[in-house]
Amino acid sequence: MNNDCIFCKIITGVIPAQKIYEDDKVFAFLDINPVNPGHTLVIPKEHFKNIMETPPEILCNLVKVVQKIAPAIVKATDSEGFNVGINTGSSAGQVIFHTHIHVMPRRSDDGRALWKGKEYGEGEIEETAEKIKTAIG
Amino acid sequence: MNNDCIFCKIITGVIPAQKIYEDDKVFAFLDINPVNPGHTLVIPKEHFKNIMETPPEILCNLVKVVQKIAPAIVKATDSEGFNVGINTGSSAGQVIFHTHIHVMPRRSDDGRALWKGKEYGEGEIEETAEKIKTAIG
Repeated sequence: MNNDCIFCKIITGVIPAQKIYEDDKVFAFLDINPVNPGHTLVIPKEHFKNIMETPPEILCNLVKVVQKIAPAIVKATDSEGFNVGINTGSSAGQVIFHTHIHVMPRRSDDGRALWKGKEYGEGEIEETAEKIKTAIG
Repeated sequence: MNNDCIFCKIITGVIPAQKIYEDDKVFAFLDINPVNPGHTLVIPKEHFKNIMETPPEILCNLVKVVQKIAPAIVKATDSEGFNVGINTGSSAGQVIFHTHIHVMPRRSDDGRALWKGKEYGEGEIEETAEKIKTAIG
């Protein structure tokens, strides 16, 4: 727990977020500026600055969760595929210095570039989270 | 081994590539259309279509190799950080259907967008591979 970290505060519930998955090591929630609706961030519950500082076994936990939830994200958003992205360092676009893996559902016709997020409409993020949680089962 | 797969042919040496790392499960080589010089592809030696079809333990091997070689890629190319990317499905930009993880070194001033690769100059790819291999040690 890092008291200055927004993602640590999301994990503890101090800052609200649309959680779609949680286990003892990993937490996943919707990015509020999604590349596409359903854009998810998969993070370790323990605070590490980036993937280089994350123990390999924790990184493995994260990618296993990506494998578990990505099909549900794709299904729930009527998508066809997905991008996984991890940015390390500000030069690479990392903004929050708590390890996170982006999972971004894609459709051939979505016409959206990477890292050009836009906000959800009214009620859309809650609805998207519900659909994904149902698809995860 | 999939006889129609360009990456399987790179692993067996039928198609030449600038290899920067190899162990019993994982192979890594330079992308010939790099986002930035040093852009590396980390692949399993066994053929799987995408990360969803890759066994979790193999995916863990891949991310551990990313952790191992990314600092060397950053150092050898005088970069500051790096992006990791995995595309699943053609809608997400996957072109070769053999699981691969992109590791793309970045500098704040590189001005290059993701997925806008450009070819290496004469001799540049060989020189880059040598520098990275030296940095891996």
